[in-house]
Amino acid sequence: MSFDATILTLYPDMFPGPLGMSLSGDALARGVWSLAARNIRDHGLGRHRVVDDTPAGGGPGMVLRCDVLGQAIDANVPENDPRPKLLMSPRGQPLTQAFARELAAGPGVVIVCGRFEGVDERVIEGRGLQEVSIGDYVLSGGEMAAMIVLDACVRLLPGVMGKEASGTEESFEANRLEYPHYTRPREWEGRSIPDVLLSGNHAMIQRWRRQESERITRERRPDLLER
Amino acid sequence: MSFDATILTLYPDMFPGPLGMSLSGDALARGVWSLAARNIRDHGLGRHRVVDDTPAGGGPGMVLRCDVLGQAIDANVPENDPRPKLLMSPRGQPLTQAFARELAAGPGVVIVCGRFEGVDERVIEGRGLQEVSIGDYVLSGGEMAAMIVLDACVRLLPGVMGKEASGTEESFEANRLEYPHYTRPREWEGRSIPDVLLSGNHAMIQRWRRQESERITRERRPDLLER
Repeated sequence: MSFDATILTLYPDMFPGPLGMSLSGDALARGVWSLAARNIRDHGLGRHRVVDDTPAGGGPGMVLRCDVLGQAIDANVPENDPRPKLLMSPRGQPLTQAFARELAAGPGVVIVCGRFEGVDERVIEGRGLQEVSIGDYVLSGGEMAAMIVLDACVRLLPGVMGKEASGTEESFEANRLEYPHYTRPREWEGRSIPDVLLSGNHAMIQRWRRQESERITRERRPDLLER
Repeated sequence: MSFDATILTLYPDMFPGPLGMSLSGDALARGVWSLAARNIRDHGLGRHRVVDDTPAGGGPGMVLRCDVLGQAIDANVPENDPRPKLLMSPRGQPLTQAFARELAAGPGVVIVCGRFEGVDERVIEGRGLQEVSIGDYVLSGGEMAAMIVLDACVRLLPGVMGKEASGTEESFEANRLEYPHYTRPREWEGRSIPDVLLSGNHAMIQRWRRQESERITRERRPDLLER
């Protein structure tokens, strides 16, 4: 069973891009997941394959047409496709580690990447698109946001990471930020590894790491402690 | 005056990747910004160019060595370089639209991309790295996160977007999510454009958009209303 991603975009050549290298690229080559990037413009109107038009009611920018995007979805996603259909959008449900884990446990994702000012609201309703945001900032389009969703999911798929993943994840999922890491050399520019980490006393090491994790979370992200 | 980005990474071939296309790619070609991706491994140790080692105190994964990363920074970033030095990390200060705007107003950024379990804490302190997070999830590395930072900045540089940007941004910066967009056709699959948007009454249209924006923010992200 593989994790299958279909991306609807005006820039299919952006994919796989960075997802084709390193961890996610190795997993792609091994068939742990699949990636199909489809061009929305193939369903554009007329000789110029028009995909957008001016916003009803006026205002800046252009809006992706519902008929064009609807056709692009229908042509690439069977009606009984069990995969969630996401639309990358700053208005969406924030991506979290728990959400990534939920997606990774499923059959894959369909991701629609917007560009321009936005997407006609009716296709969001009509095709049941689930709006997802990777953070409170504005991007030039949904493509890099889609890559973030996929990278976060793929590393969680069985056989992609070994034990290496576990530390970071568990720490994040418990709503705590990671404790500081150290490795060789023991001394560098007058800075040493904290003694406790060299003590060999595993209970003390664990306690130190937990305390540091708490301290850093309290200092930087007190909001996480309230969740 | 250009916005200059230097990326320190173990995967320089990931860049420019998606940043080389569309809006950011056009701006890159026009010299509005520059991008240099440098390989941390060039400063690795010995014949095998080792860059990491096991964590002091035990535990899973590998930690990026402070001496190697320190050398990579020193070789690529002059001491008096005015650019902020960011380290992409889930422990970092969350990227926001205001933060992106602040970065975009400056001379550029140096971005260190971690991989593995993390980076030796001493190089963060010793080189004054500012940890930045794009969201509360774990990625396989900092590269795609760096792309997000750059995309969010580049679109704000003078001459990159015209008026098209203004709507989305202002809406987001006022801590409100965007109102729904519509465009032609007037009817689609039995769904119509709301009458008010076709009324030609600009005061009513503005009021409707403001109310929708408030409603959507209240429903989806009440946390934004409290900021």
